[in-house]
Amino acid sequence: MQIKEILQTAEIGKEITVKGWVRTKRVSSNVVFININDGSVIHNIQAVAETGIIDEETLKLVTTGSCVAITGTLIESQGQGQKVELQVKSVFVYGTADPEKYPLQPKKHSLEFLREIAHLRPRTNTFSAILRVRHSLAFAINKYFNDNGFFYLHTPIITGSDAEGAGEMFRVSTLDPIKPPLNEDGSVNYKEDFFGKETNLTVSGQLEGELGAMALSKIYTFGPTFRAENSNTTRHLAEFWMIEPEVAFFELEDNMNLAEDFTKYVINYALTNCYDDLVFLENRLKEEEKNKKKEEQSELSLIEKLRFVVDNDYVRLTYTEAIKILLNSKRHKEGKFQYPVEWGIDLQSEHERYLVEKHFKKPVILTNYPKDIKAFYMKQDEDGKTVRAMDVLFPGIGEIIGGSQREDDYEKLLQRTKEVGIHEDTIWWYLETRKYGSAPHSGFGLGFERMVLFVTGMTNIRDVIPFPRTPKSAEF
Amino acid sequence: MQIKEILQTAEIGKEITVKGWVRTKRVSSNVVFININDGSVIHNIQAVAETGIIDEETLKLVTTGSCVAITGTLIESQGQGQKVELQVKSVFVYGTADPEKYPLQPKKHSLEFLREIAHLRPRTNTFSAILRVRHSLAFAINKYFNDNGFFYLHTPIITGSDAEGAGEMFRVSTLDPIKPPLNEDGSVNYKEDFFGKETNLTVSGQLEGELGAMALSKIYTFGPTFRAENSNTTRHLAEFWMIEPEVAFFELEDNMNLAEDFTKYVINYALTNCYDDLVFLENRLKEEEKNKKKEEQSELSLIEKLRFVVDNDYVRLTYTEAIKILLNSKRHKEGKFQYPVEWGIDLQSEHERYLVEKHFKKPVILTNYPKDIKAFYMKQDEDGKTVRAMDVLFPGIGEIIGGSQREDDYEKLLQRTKEVGIHEDTIWWYLETRKYGSAPHSGFGLGFERMVLFVTGMTNIRDVIPFPRTPKSAEF
Repeated sequence: MQIKEILQTAEIGKEITVKGWVRTKRVSSNVVFININDGSVIHNIQAVAETGIIDEETLKLVTTGSCVAITGTLIESQGQGQKVELQVKSVFVYGTADPEKYPLQPKKHSLEFLREIAHLRPRTNTFSAILRVRHSLAFAINKYFNDNGFFYLHTPIITGSDAEGAGEMFRVSTLDPIKPPLNEDGSVNYKEDFFGKETNLTVSGQLEGELGAMALSKIYTFGPTFRAENSNTTRHLAEFWMIEPEVAFFELEDNMNLAEDFTKYVINYALTNCYDDLVFLENRLKEEEKNKKKEEQSELSLIEKLRFVVDNDYVRLTYTEAIKILLNSKRHKEGKFQYPVEWGIDLQSEHERYLVEKHFKKPVILTNYPKDIKAFYMKQDEDGKTVRAMDVLFPGIGEIIGGSQREDDYEKLLQRTKEVGIHEDTIWWYLETRKYGSAPHSGFGLGFERMVLFVTGMTNIRDVIPFPRTPKSAEF
Repeated sequence: MQIKEILQTAEIGKEITVKGWVRTKRVSSNVVFININDGSVIHNIQAVAETGIIDEETLKLVTTGSCVAITGTLIESQGQGQKVELQVKSVFVYGTADPEKYPLQPKKHSLEFLREIAHLRPRTNTFSAILRVRHSLAFAINKYFNDNGFFYLHTPIITGSDAEGAGEMFRVSTLDPIKPPLNEDGSVNYKEDFFGKETNLTVSGQLEGELGAMALSKIYTFGPTFRAENSNTTRHLAEFWMIEPEVAFFELEDNMNLAEDFTKYVINYALTNCYDDLVFLENRLKEEEKNKKKEEQSELSLIEKLRFVVDNDYVRLTYTEAIKILLNSKRHKEGKFQYPVEWGIDLQSEHERYLVEKHFKKPVILTNYPKDIKAFYMKQDEDGKTVRAMDVLFPGIGEIIGGSQREDDYEKLLQRTKEVGIHEDTIWWYLETRKYGSAPHSGFGLGFERMVLFVTGMTNIRDVIPFPRTPKSAEF
């Protein structure tokens, strides 16, 4: 019986066996207290044994990190902090954990240290809470789309086209790494590679997702994506998970409605289903921020922040309007933005966060960005200068969603591919969706780890994925 | 309003707009019939327009594959084959599809031809049905595990270790492909590569999954996995999706119970939620098998086969017992197996299918395989010859699940890694789970496409994934 179930049903007087890992052991004069956790829930269960119940030899093996099965009777707790506890009848030790060597002794560990032992950190309260929340968010995403008539489409991970142009890519190959076969001109002869062509890891499933939407009307992807960018920041991973819905007959307005409804649903799901984990993470964050300057502390607690998103309408305005607000801001006038503000710039995180956190104090959806700073596939506005893009901006995170209505006019799309230097023969299949039964359609991408960061209140993206991949690091 | 919803609610007399792709247009003396599909469901909706309602110019553009919005009144159908139809008031054409060029004209297309136009094949009945079933199976998998207290763990795609030893791997690199940096001994200097070491695409998330189970008790993975094997068969893909549950405190028996309960749940979910698609696919299969010899035709229809799995207990026996049955079989005695049968062999598909389809006529779980043909991490039996492996065998498919109880003894595991030539320093983190709080645990892997093959009745694995990756092919 798992601890989550025990705490929920709590049948006093019943004999049960709890299997899990020892968090702490405390021996007092005539009683032993053993706290066990099995990862099913943030809470431990406390086992209490009177002296003599557990033999000396066994008791020695019961140390922090050891794995045990404890059988006993569930009773109302005598102490504080828990409703029920286990009156021990017998203890079996599955596996020991040498106190001299086991790194997760009951004391405070830095997040940096825990990253180095990512194979063990899920055994801590913080990381087990993050992983449970991560699970619930993933399930909520699948449930939302399923319940709303979307089909989960597995788009390819290995791709022969760099059409998205979203960044540097990882090459996938089985050629001899030292002496690859070469063409006469000295270039690599990829015809001899596994796939008979040069292949890379995908940066986005969107283009293939559009193919699905042009047949099934409503699809979404949820899979790993990759960027070979040498960015050693708290916001970048080389391997991360992305969600990309794509809907036929949706225009920009529908797309905004979907993004707002979807993010609210997912966050609300976490509030309902992970409340205890969120309370723990909220307290962790408060503790962490104690050492920060007042102005760097969060105004809202974690749960307040999540409720705030769920309860408020997102503000919607155009990029052009946003630039005006930034130009008129006191912060700009006092020269306190690090990056310049003018129409045409790619907004920096400081600008996005100013709009969200200072000006509107609400999530913001910016639309109709300049054509030149957005991808080739976005639908051009009639002014010829902007495209039907939309970015959803969240407090603390900045951009959490990027999307657009797609260009559905074959000639316009073809021209844009030429302008940005994409060869027609690499994406003939994409262009054909505009040749045969083209339709207005829209979609967006959500970086899953950005959402997990937001909901857990963590600050480093390496702490919300089980085994982070970053420059010079691919451990475990 | 999507066609699925229209057919479910069917409010006669209501004015609605249907958006979708034209499957067929038929013009009779005074009426035009247009069949539209939007991918939400296998069924089309028929729009009926009296002559003159649609102007000549527009009507010319309404051809197979064009995308339209048709507004009209929902009425009870006059003809056969559908309950309701749409009495047309107006037609708007979003995108045309030149009948001279659009490849999906209303006639029979071979699966081989459709593979070449994988960007358009989701617009056919067969592939839209497959993709809807695939979606439902994926959702059922996530729902089953969520409802049973498992946490979805995203294990890494790019990996620095080939510990599983499950097959050839794809190298992931950003080094110069022509002149990579070399060490003094002439080998590639992977320290200069993106991750500072040699990295490959994962062949399994199991080892990392075990790390999760040793903290959260019950986890599952569901992600892409890769094999760089030059196998051009109907059963192999270079990129496919795998589900791998892993459970602390589960022994082999619990693992078998999980595998049986899980597969039955998922198949039953498809029967309940994809019935119309399965009826379509069942008829497709009957049609396809008409041209086959009697003995090659399926004994059961598709839906009968699925119900058969759901309604029957799986037979459980050891590998050793299975070898005896095979040796005593008429087929063996008459020398009709292609491959030899003796204790110690890796069972071939013909052997597995004989057991399932001829001998037991039920799904079969084989256990306790010879140590030498199974992976290093499987728990050794006391006889020293076999391990606590289990394979689940399905009719038509053979092995659909492979799993085991894992070796939880540190010394035994260490010895096996040495025997199979895995360096301790590449999987120190895996070994440590047996050093600190080790516990009995078990898990298995399900190749997702194998399950989709089984449920859809398709015979080539390239037809159950949207964009297949196979030797010399990574299109779209």
